[in-house]
Amino acid sequence: MALNKKPTTGMRDVLPEEMRIREYVQGVIRSTYSEFGFTSIETPCVENIGNLTSKQGGDNEKLIFKILKRGEKLNVADATTEEEVVDGGLRYDLTVPLVRFYSNNSANLPTPFKSLQMGNVWRADRPQKGRYRQFMQCDIDILGEPSNLAEIELILATTTTLGRLGFKGFEIRINERRILKAMAAYSGFPEDSYDSVFITMDKMDKIGEAGVRAELIENGFAAEAADKYLALFRDMEQAEDKLTFLAQTLGDYLEDGIRANLQEIMDCVRATKCSDFEIVFDATLVRGMGYYTGTIFEIAMPQLGIACGGGGRYDKMVGKFTGQDVPACGFSIGFERIILLLMESGFTVPGQREKVAYLIEKGISGQQLCDIIAKAQEARANGQQVLIARMNKNKKFQKEQLNGEGYENFEEFYKEALK
Amino acid sequence: MALNKKPTTGMRDVLPEEMRIREYVQGVIRSTYSEFGFTSIETPCVENIGNLTSKQGGDNEKLIFKILKRGEKLNVADATTEEEVVDGGLRYDLTVPLVRFYSNNSANLPTPFKSLQMGNVWRADRPQKGRYRQFMQCDIDILGEPSNLAEIELILATTTTLGRLGFKGFEIRINERRILKAMAAYSGFPEDSYDSVFITMDKMDKIGEAGVRAELIENGFAAEAADKYLALFRDMEQAEDKLTFLAQTLGDYLEDGIRANLQEIMDCVRATKCSDFEIVFDATLVRGMGYYTGTIFEIAMPQLGIACGGGGRYDKMVGKFTGQDVPACGFSIGFERIILLLMESGFTVPGQREKVAYLIEKGISGQQLCDIIAKAQEARANGQQVLIARMNKNKKFQKEQLNGEGYENFEEFYKEALK
Repeated sequence: MALNKKPTTGMRDVLPEEMRIREYVQGVIRSTYSEFGFTSIETPCVENIGNLTSKQGGDNEKLIFKILKRGEKLNVADATTEEEVVDGGLRYDLTVPLVRFYSNNSANLPTPFKSLQMGNVWRADRPQKGRYRQFMQCDIDILGEPSNLAEIELILATTTTLGRLGFKGFEIRINERRILKAMAAYSGFPEDSYDSVFITMDKMDKIGEAGVRAELIENGFAAEAADKYLALFRDMEQAEDKLTFLAQTLGDYLEDGIRANLQEIMDCVRATKCSDFEIVFDATLVRGMGYYTGTIFEIAMPQLGIACGGGGRYDKMVGKFTGQDVPACGFSIGFERIILLLMESGFTVPGQREKVAYLIEKGISGQQLCDIIAKAQEARANGQQVLIARMNKNKKFQKEQLNGEGYENFEEFYKEALK
Repeated sequence: MALNKKPTTGMRDVLPEEMRIREYVQGVIRSTYSEFGFTSIETPCVENIGNLTSKQGGDNEKLIFKILKRGEKLNVADATTEEEVVDGGLRYDLTVPLVRFYSNNSANLPTPFKSLQMGNVWRADRPQKGRYRQFMQCDIDILGEPSNLAEIELILATTTTLGRLGFKGFEIRINERRILKAMAAYSGFPEDSYDSVFITMDKMDKIGEAGVRAELIENGFAAEAADKYLALFRDMEQAEDKLTFLAQTLGDYLEDGIRANLQEIMDCVRATKCSDFEIVFDATLVRGMGYYTGTIFEIAMPQLGIACGGGGRYDKMVGKFTGQDVPACGFSIGFERIILLLMESGFTVPGQREKVAYLIEKGISGQQLCDIIAKAQEARANGQQVLIARMNKNKKFQKEQLNGEGYENFEEFYKEALK
């Protein structure tokens, strides 16, 4: 039986042209984040299934690639449920593994710990154009820093990186889970259903105010709560300073200090940023993950209708592993979208070496072959990229192909000097 | 229920200290291989299960992490066999995925195609010290080059890389599957059991000549064949030029040109190498993978009793995907062993940036915080690595920790000027 040439459903091969850009972008990310004191770590792609299905990951937990038990532990014939036959899964994000890592290794890590992770994650989403079931995430996180210094540094590091990659005119949108909650409480929604309210509110862009109202009522909420909630958003839109307006309106529903904390983050980022972007308060920003507890933020690119990265504070997750909470905050760059934007803009990687292709006639061997390779070795030692290839029958086509690979200089070698 | 802090069985977390070395080594590998014209590609970590269980991978096929079907395709309750519940698996090497990649994308790839892959692979081996179930492989392969130019370039590229990483005095051992086969044929073993003979012969180091003889006979082979086989090895050891001795002794059992081809590889590598190693013919070298068809080679480090990388020619694998064979040859560096050797030797990554830690008092906020971050931003723009951290109560311990991270310069910032 012939083997299957296609990648497995929903995943894809990456060709050299795109890989050059991916490696360059990874280099810029690594180098910029290291200036900010972030250090790389790595965790296994496979996690214990219990950690992946602990209600930290929201809807992503429905999309896990699960791994079959092996050896004696596996008994397919007698099993009736998935749980009986799996013991691991591919990670769906880098945050849950990071927190496990931190819990496992904190004795050997500094405080605060500033982590950089670049790695693949897997989600068995319905396959669709431009979205794949394996994709790279680039996350920075600060663990052990309770103050907004964490948010400020994360936003500066991420935006500096984007600036160095040539992006400008983008927005960082910032909000607070506790503002979202205060708005829901003020409107009269019951506390245990806030997440459902936020999911509906998050659709405002798509279904409009009337659609949100209809869905809230359909979901069993009081019309009064829906109306008060929507009026709050409407009134806020009219206010010159939305954050101040909300703080005043929400009064005791909003804990002291939350407004000032958010304002300080924005002020400090504006004063010290070194790339071209705006940071704006956005009370409609939700972020889907269940684990956020405080600030949340997103990157909005003018070219894209969707977020190009995001993050937030998750002060309660380490406690789920160790019993003791540790303040934590992270920012994830939408690596695949960044690559897509760069590819579409015709981006070329700067500073590539000079490329030369040596085309050698088929019969060349022995001492003559040695001499040619020795010459290539010398050129490589001098920093050139030298490809040695046997001359194809259709030399013109071969050269065109090599042109496409960036080879513009050719040397040709024949078994006997040409007559 | 508390979550599990430990990595899943047999896998491990990589801490910043090791990651610095891993990233440096990957950089050297990528840069050196690019001088030789290798270009990076990437394939998904998950492959269709049929491709992974097609008898290409030898014993590795018994070690696959298999992935459960999802959604309607999965019916655990009615299933009686593994095959019914899985549709994918984690790759156990990078060669099978490369060949699938090449078969899928050859219309968009140059001829010859020189590929570089760095990626994780997974094998559910029995956990043991220093061997993990997820590990990185770094492979270079040349597809579409029938002549020994492929072997020569692969060996030169790999050894140049090892040289740049500071390794010297190592050996490249080289052999030919067709010499192994000719030796078995000459001795009178039946053709369909050569692989079994090689597996036993490969244990010579451990069980000695008598052990090999006993095992061969135990496996049902004629004592005459075993004796003739062992005598051949013994006589070869006495010969000054083992390769010539074998070619003469094996006579018609060995195809024409194999000796000359191997000799040319060794001569040319010796004449053009630019790092400190020897290339030697080793008729006892086997290599486990089922897919090799010609030359095979291994890196032997003086510090290690085991191979530190290897490869060979596999001219028949593309045909399994496309129906049409394409010559192929590859070399894989034992990345994890290289890292282990470097860590054990106390290797430090060269050319790191100057590191400064700003320790700021807990109460610092507002304009004062902005000013400190602005100062850090300026220093970062000038190439320094600046970590900003809140001062801990035990400042001495904090500084010691930071020393361990490579921070030797500190600046301290207080809310009010110190009295």
